[in-house]
Amino acid sequence: MAAKPKLHYPNGRGRMESVRWVLAAAGVEFDEDFLETKEQLQKLQDGNHLLFQQVPMVEIDGMKLVQTRSILHYIADKHHLFGKDLKERTLIDMYVEGTLDLLELIIMHPFLKPDDQQKEVVNMAQKAIIRYFPVFEKVLRDHGQRFLVGNQLSLADVILLQTILALEEKIPNILSAFPHLQEFTVKISNIPTIKKFLEPGSKKKPPPDDIYVRTVYNIFMP
Amino acid sequence: MAAKPKLHYPNGRGRMESVRWVLAAAGVEFDEDFLETKEQLQKLQDGNHLLFQQVPMVEIDGMKLVQTRSILHYIADKHHLFGKDLKERTLIDMYVEGTLDLLELIIMHPFLKPDDQQKEVVNMAQKAIIRYFPVFEKVLRDHGQRFLVGNQLSLADVILLQTILALEEKIPNILSAFPHLQEFTVKISNIPTIKKFLEPGSKKKPPPDDIYVRTVYNIFMP
Repeated sequence: MAAKPKLHYPNGRGRMESVRWVLAAAGVEFDEDFLETKEQLQKLQDGNHLLFQQVPMVEIDGMKLVQTRSILHYIADKHHLFGKDLKERTLIDMYVEGTLDLLELIIMHPFLKPDDQQKEVVNMAQKAIIRYFPVFEKVLRDHGQRFLVGNQLSLADVILLQTILALEEKIPNILSAFPHLQEFTVKISNIPTIKKFLEPGSKKKPPPDDIYVRTVYNIFMP
Repeated sequence: MAAKPKLHYPNGRGRMESVRWVLAAAGVEFDEDFLETKEQLQKLQDGNHLLFQQVPMVEIDGMKLVQTRSILHYIADKHHLFGKDLKERTLIDMYVEGTLDLLELIIMHPFLKPDDQQKEVVNMAQKAIIRYFPVFEKVLRDHGQRFLVGNQLSLADVILLQTILALEEKIPNILSAFPHLQEFTVKISNIPTIKKFLEPGSKKKPPPDDIYVRTVYNIFMP
């Protein structure tokens, strides 16, 4: 039996949370090695464990994968979350790329100055409601299935659900004008592997707090 | 015969230049519809031609592809620039993602304040020399081939060559400590499709100038 994947990142969401989501959705158990100090990062760098000297890094199948998207793509390929042909794959890729642009705003939010944080919530709500959610609402409405692409779960569904739930923590009524996305959220959340990930005690990380922000600064600031 | 791909973007490099590079490397002829005004962008948006209301957009094989990476991945998949198996694909993906992080600095550079532009050249030189080029130098040295992955051209080679040449325009001796990358640059530049793209009169765009920067502001600023 192959060793479990091991994730190297601080103990918080950041850019690793999508990887945790996709592994969980695929039903893959994983271990985590939490970075807590600059010295631990330095040790990984000095040992040539980080291709571009950065985390996230995931040890999996004898490789040390880096770059968030590359990690997500590998897991999605391996676990059949990337569609049945190149056309489906390309749709999934576009939906994921759009959603990651929105998710990036959420990831960076705790690192903004306090004065800018409230303004940025307005900005991300607007982006979600005007640019991204109407696209997915229409896809789900026209498509008539619970999945964004084809008739099975893909990377696009997982990353969209992650992003919706993270946005709802800040803006509880963000889906009020999007009935198909509401239904999508309920249905995808009830897929057994994902349902388990959403329950207490899973490896899903809580919203970023001051301790997480301080830890990140301590590790990554020169 | 299928219609040529049509690229929708301003008449300059930006995020579309990588797409031009990869199409050219694959030997694919393409047309361009240059955005020059806010009204032209609005028209594409109003006609639902832009999935997330943004360019780059490429009409290809009956699809309207958006999101730079998704466009690159589709072309790479279609033209066998993504390796022979999942392991090669994942290496290519990681190399491309790292290189795109470096390229992003170059793309954003002309839009910085004049005072910040010189400082940023120093920053991108450091990133290139310390973080990215040593990785590719080592890969080429250990691998003993002229390509980054396997024994044929991939998306990783194309994006790396694009990035090296763009950096050399600003920092002519940027490769002085990297003999294998120097050799790589010469060899990949001499692949017939790429050689043609590097000759005058091709669809390769010149370095961004003031007119390009003003055009971009005019189109995209609210």
